[in-house]
Amino acid sequence: MRAFDAATEACKQLSIRPRMTQSTQSVYIGIDIGGTALKGGVVTREGVVILRQSAATEAQRGPDAVIEDVAELVAGLTSAATARALRAASVGVGVPGLVSAAEGVVHAAPNLPGWTDVPLRDRLSTRTGLRTSVDNDANNAALGELIAGAGHGVRDMVMLTLGTGVGSGLILGGRLWHGATGHAGEIGHTIVQPGGRACGCGQLGCLEAYASASSTARRAAEAIASGAPSSMKAVIDGGGELDARHVVEAARAGDALAVGIWEDTCRYLAIACIGIQRMLNPQAIVFSGGMSEAGESLLNPLRAAIDRLASKSFGAMPDIRIAELGNDAGFIGSALNEPWHAGAP
Amino acid sequence: MRAFDAATEACKQLSIRPRMTQSTQSVYIGIDIGGTALKGGVVTREGVVILRQSAATEAQRGPDAVIEDVAELVAGLTSAATARALRAASVGVGVPGLVSAAEGVVHAAPNLPGWTDVPLRDRLSTRTGLRTSVDNDANNAALGELIAGAGHGVRDMVMLTLGTGVGSGLILGGRLWHGATGHAGEIGHTIVQPGGRACGCGQLGCLEAYASASSTARRAAEAIASGAPSSMKAVIDGGGELDARHVVEAARAGDALAVGIWEDTCRYLAIACIGIQRMLNPQAIVFSGGMSEAGESLLNPLRAAIDRLASKSFGAMPDIRIAELGNDAGFIGSALNEPWHAGAP
Repeated sequence: MRAFDAATEACKQLSIRPRMTQSTQSVYIGIDIGGTALKGGVVTREGVVILRQSAATEAQRGPDAVIEDVAELVAGLTSAATARALRAASVGVGVPGLVSAAEGVVHAAPNLPGWTDVPLRDRLSTRTGLRTSVDNDANNAALGELIAGAGHGVRDMVMLTLGTGVGSGLILGGRLWHGATGHAGEIGHTIVQPGGRACGCGQLGCLEAYASASSTARRAAEAIASGAPSSMKAVIDGGGELDARHVVEAARAGDALAVGIWEDTCRYLAIACIGIQRMLNPQAIVFSGGMSEAGESLLNPLRAAIDRLASKSFGAMPDIRIAELGNDAGFIGSALNEPWHAGAP
Repeated sequence: MRAFDAATEACKQLSIRPRMTQSTQSVYIGIDIGGTALKGGVVTREGVVILRQSAATEAQRGPDAVIEDVAELVAGLTSAATARALRAASVGVGVPGLVSAAEGVVHAAPNLPGWTDVPLRDRLSTRTGLRTSVDNDANNAALGELIAGAGHGVRDMVMLTLGTGVGSGLILGGRLWHGATGHAGEIGHTIVQPGGRACGCGQLGCLEAYASASSTARRAAEAIASGAPSSMKAVIDGGGELDARHVVEAARAGDALAVGIWEDTCRYLAIACIGIQRMLNPQAIVFSGGMSEAGESLLNPLRAAIDRLASKSFGAMPDIRIAELGNDAGFIGSALNEPWHAGAP
C-alpha cells in the first residue's frame, strides 16, 4: 500500500488524476542488477520514484535466467504504471561490470557467472518491446544522485562508493564519462601508496586496499591480531566479524586504535579527492555506499585531512557531500540514463 | 627567406597562387606567451605552420607593455599573411597561468608580474580588430599536439609536459577540459608519495616533486652531495649545474646512481599514468617538454614500470607517446583553439 500511496502522491505532484483520465505522461523504468537483488522502479523525468519493486538475483542460473527475471520485473512495473495511466517510455539497466553503453553489451561482470559479451540491450528490448539502455551500475548510481540526489545544481561530479570495494562514477559537463574503452571511473584502483597493501586487482597500494569499508575493517582486525589493544577486540572475542561500523563507533568513543585506523582511511580518501580535483576540478565529490552512512564522522576528518594536505594554490576544493538516495540511486539513474543524455546540454 | 619559402610551399599545398589572386583562404594566428619569449605563428585549419615569428617577453614591464608587444606581433603576422593573399581570421593566445577561457581573463600568472584579472581577450581584440580567444598555455599545447602532432586519430588525450615543473592538458571527447573553475589539468600536483618530498606548491609528495626535469636533477644532486658515488659528480666538480640530461646520459652509460634516479622518475610517471587511466581511460598519454627529448630512454623504462605496476584487469593502458611539435605546439593550439572548438564534434 505504501507504494500506491507514494504513486498517488507523485501523481498529485505531477497534476495527474490517477485512473480518471487517459494520460500520456511518460515515466521511465529502471533496473539495478546486483549480485543478490534486482531492484526496480518507475520514475518521472525529474527522478521522483512512483513505484518500487524487487526480486532476488539468481545469478548462479546464468544470464538467460537473469534476463528473463529482469524482463518479468519490467513487465510488472509497466503494467503497474499503465494502471496508473502512466506510459512507460523506456527501460534502463545497471550492471555491476564492464559495459559498453554505446553497444549495449555487458562484456564482463565478476559477480554474475556467465556474463561474457552479453548483448543485454538488444535481448531485453526484443523481449519487452521497450527502448532499452544499459550501463555500469556505479555510473547509473552517480547519474541518479546527480539528477535527484546530492548532485543538485551540479554538472561536473565524481561519486565514490565505499563498500566492499571503492566504486566510482564520473559526470563531466552533465554527461556520464565512460572513457575510450569503458574503463573510466576506476578511481578505487589508483595507487595512493606506492608499494603498499595488496589489492584484489593485483596492484599494490590501491585506494581500495585502504579506504573501502572492508579494508578499513581488515586493517583494524590485523592490528588487533598483532596485539594492539582496542575495545574492538570484544567483537572478535565474541565470535563476530569486525566491520567498518565497529571502527567508526569505536573511534567516536575514543578508542585509540580505531581513531588511528579511521584517520588513515580518511587520509587516503583525502589524497584521492586532491587527485580528483587536480585532474578534473569537478564541482562536487559525492560519497555513497555503506561506509558513507558515517555522515559527519566521515566528512569532518576527511575535510580536516584535505585542509592539512592540499595546497591552496589551485582554487577551492570541490564540495564534499554524502549521497542522498541510498539504494534507489541505481535504478533512478538506470531509468533516466537514456532520456537524460538525449536531452542533456 | 626560409619563412617565405615555407609559406610558398604551404600555399602550394593549399593550391593557392601567392600574390596572384585575391584569395579568401582563412588562416589563424597563434601566440604563446612564455616567461622569456613570445612565440607566434600563422597556421592553417589543419595545423600547417605557414609563418613563424617571435619576440622577447619583457615581463617585468607589466601586462600593458606585454599586451602591446603581442599586438605588434599579431599585426606583423597579419600583414605577412595578407601579403601572401591569406586572410587572418582570428587570433588565439596561450598564457602560463590561471585563465578563464570562457571569460577571456587571465586571473594569475606566476611568471608574469602584474597579471591579475587581466581581460586579455577583450583588450587584444579591441587593439587588433580580430576575433580573439585566450587559454592556458599547457591546454593550448595539448590541443596543438592533438590537431597536428602526436594526437593523430585520438579524441581523448592527456598531455604531460616535463620541464621545470610537470604541466598537463586534458582533451576529452575532442575538447579541452577546463574543470569547474579552470583548475583542471594540474596532474603535476597529484600526490604520488604521501608524506614525500616537498613541492613548490606547498604539498608533500607531488608528482612534480619527483618527476619534473628539475626534480630529477635535484634528486641526483642531493644523492651526490650526501656521498653517493657517480660519474655525474664531474659536472658539479667542474662548476656546472646538473640537469636531467646529465642523469639520462649517465643512466645510458650505466652509472648506478643515475640508473636508480631515472628509474624512480619513470616509476612515479608510471603511477601517474595508471591514475590517469583509472580515472579517465583516455586513448593516449603524450609526453612533451625538455625531458621528453630522452625519447626511447624515457618510453622504455616507463612502459616497463607500467607493465610491472598496473593490473591487467582494467583493459589496455592508453598509448604512451612523445610529442611531435616541440615549441610550435603552443602557438598552433592557441591559433586553432577557437575555430577547433567551434567546429568540434
